[in-house]
Amino acid sequence: MTSRPFEFQVAATCNRARAGAMETPHGSVPTPAFMPVATQGSVKGLLPQEVRDLGATVILSNTYHLYLRPGIDYIEKAGGLHAFMGWNGPLLTDSGGFQVFSMGSLTRLSDQGVTFRSHIDGGLHGFTPEEAVRYQERLGVDIMMCLDQCIAANEGDGRIKEAMDRTHGWAVRCRETWNSPHQALFGIVQGGISKGLREESTRFITGLDFPGHAVGGLAVGETKAQMYDMVSYMDQLLPRDKPRYLMGVGSPEDLVQCVARGMDLFDCALPTRVARNGALFTPAGRVGITASRFKGTTGPVVEGCDCYTCRNFSISYLHHLFKAKELLGLRLASIHNLRFVQRLMEEMRSKILDGTFESYAQDFLAAYKPTSESVRMAQKERWLEMRTGS
Amino acid sequence: MTSRPFEFQVAATCNRARAGAMETPHGSVPTPAFMPVATQGSVKGLLPQEVRDLGATVILSNTYHLYLRPGIDYIEKAGGLHAFMGWNGPLLTDSGGFQVFSMGSLTRLSDQGVTFRSHIDGGLHGFTPEEAVRYQERLGVDIMMCLDQCIAANEGDGRIKEAMDRTHGWAVRCRETWNSPHQALFGIVQGGISKGLREESTRFITGLDFPGHAVGGLAVGETKAQMYDMVSYMDQLLPRDKPRYLMGVGSPEDLVQCVARGMDLFDCALPTRVARNGALFTPAGRVGITASRFKGTTGPVVEGCDCYTCRNFSISYLHHLFKAKELLGLRLASIHNLRFVQRLMEEMRSKILDGTFESYAQDFLAAYKPTSESVRMAQKERWLEMRTGS
Repeated sequence: MTSRPFEFQVAATCNRARAGAMETPHGSVPTPAFMPVATQGSVKGLLPQEVRDLGATVILSNTYHLYLRPGIDYIEKAGGLHAFMGWNGPLLTDSGGFQVFSMGSLTRLSDQGVTFRSHIDGGLHGFTPEEAVRYQERLGVDIMMCLDQCIAANEGDGRIKEAMDRTHGWAVRCRETWNSPHQALFGIVQGGISKGLREESTRFITGLDFPGHAVGGLAVGETKAQMYDMVSYMDQLLPRDKPRYLMGVGSPEDLVQCVARGMDLFDCALPTRVARNGALFTPAGRVGITASRFKGTTGPVVEGCDCYTCRNFSISYLHHLFKAKELLGLRLASIHNLRFVQRLMEEMRSKILDGTFESYAQDFLAAYKPTSESVRMAQKERWLEMRTGS
Repeated sequence: MTSRPFEFQVAATCNRARAGAMETPHGSVPTPAFMPVATQGSVKGLLPQEVRDLGATVILSNTYHLYLRPGIDYIEKAGGLHAFMGWNGPLLTDSGGFQVFSMGSLTRLSDQGVTFRSHIDGGLHGFTPEEAVRYQERLGVDIMMCLDQCIAANEGDGRIKEAMDRTHGWAVRCRETWNSPHQALFGIVQGGISKGLREESTRFITGLDFPGHAVGGLAVGETKAQMYDMVSYMDQLLPRDKPRYLMGVGSPEDLVQCVARGMDLFDCALPTRVARNGALFTPAGRVGITASRFKGTTGPVVEGCDCYTCRNFSISYLHHLFKAKELLGLRLASIHNLRFVQRLMEEMRSKILDGTFESYAQDFLAAYKPTSESVRMAQKERWLEMRTGS
């Protein structure tokens, strides 16, 4: 592995959708890209090699979780997070800010930083922006995130502006702390669903010359329409020569909608979490694998699907594994959903490159039915994820 | 796949230990052999390909569980158990008798058969010896087991004799029902820890000319010394030209002790069950992976171990996965323990073939320490397994 600086190139656009590539010390990431979530240093139930085999080129882990358990020291001594978890590809960590606010029990928040109680044992801990960057440098990840304060869209403009201003101050200190040329640091734009605040935040964050930009504070309570509108607006504001990472988004319909709105990078625990609950992605929407109609069904979950699960097992067998509460079911369902999402990203990239993305996206969205219930569930699950880190 | 009759050959002996091979329609089984347990049609958490990769040549599933869920009809329609679960190697099913008595709620027991309530939904079901064989024929497995009545060694000679006599009557009817030339049917010797009853049962069962014999009714409550004594006695009684399957035995020390006493085939859920509880096999005995001393340990669980887990991950990472309750930990620990047992079987076979088995067995048993606690736990776990089917 040759250590080289972070690079990003847009190879083609199709209206607002972009196809490109990020170069990192641990390899190339064709974009648009979805990052499977390895919160605690493991994509739940899957081997690193399986994650690679299903087409993922970059995965996400979490500084807050790894700091609390097993601890940054232990991972550093093990040779860094890549070596510790056995993933030799590109690796991004969230800073932990999001989890401090959503999972930890916050005890003090100031411009200086945060103190919080661990969700594991109640122990008292503190994060400053400087520490968040140093921890990620010691983890050795390819892409680090600034510490930010993420609050829900329905908190009110006053509180959202306060959190945004604090995020800006922290971004400056993160930028000044960043000292490792082989690791990239992304800035995070906040501002809720206020166009004014988003504009202000984008101006501030892009002024700090980060190698990439993230859109934070979406998919945390606003409606889908509000989220899509704000993503469209962010597309107008953000510089085109740097990657745009839409944090916490990953349902199939949202991925298509937001690639169409110029986003490059995504992460979400939803595909694996709903898989473990027996909800499998199909081109028509999610299906519940425990439905009795699948008991005698001999074909795969999705006809023609190239995932390991569909190539090797029937929907009837998956139904059985879930009814019998067999561990293998969680794994086969996770593989199917992650591969569904990875293939979606690959296809979108290919369609952007050949100029047919718009009809592809229209066809996908016409067939894929997120029921109003599933829209609500998606919101709810996103909040659940915050609390459980799953 | 060519359908061919079941065959067994002993290639070499070393004192009482035997090395041989069973030929089945789905492939060859070098013996002595350990069968990983796929009670409900899945070795818990593992893909069939992984089970194959760790060296298993034959696995065990359970008629009682599959009959109740998903049902024999569904599996038959799916093309049989091999196709349903994606295992294309040799496959043995227990008849379900053991589980009817240990898990189901027995409502009536007579020479005719058993009626019981399902442990899943309380529904009323019945098994006759004829049905037990027909179900296994319809599952399409390579080796079927007769319906038997298994009771604990401490039940008293009167009840043990009664169960033995009933088992004999059922064996006759199973033998008469057996109608598929490409499937083997094994008879089961009962008789508890009474030499007289074991002798009587062996005479009866071997008189029915089954292609293989199982020793039932051990590892169900007697002491280890009593079990080893009885296995030695069974070695004297059973014909040498047919395979001997010691049911429900599978701790590393028991496997060595009982291969040394002339047994060829074994099954047990213990290696995977203790793995899921964080107990990993090492040449010195089991270690608890959550012990704090493993937090900073960078080497593998067992230095030089060729399992996927030890080749790719540190004991420190496994410790982390278990502390963080990550699904992947269950899987990596199961792979390690099953590979430990498979390698043990491979090494024993090789040492029998080259005539050095006895010193190998002595060295293994001198190094491997089952504490008195672990002996008790092994007994307890065996009973637990009956109740939970895990």
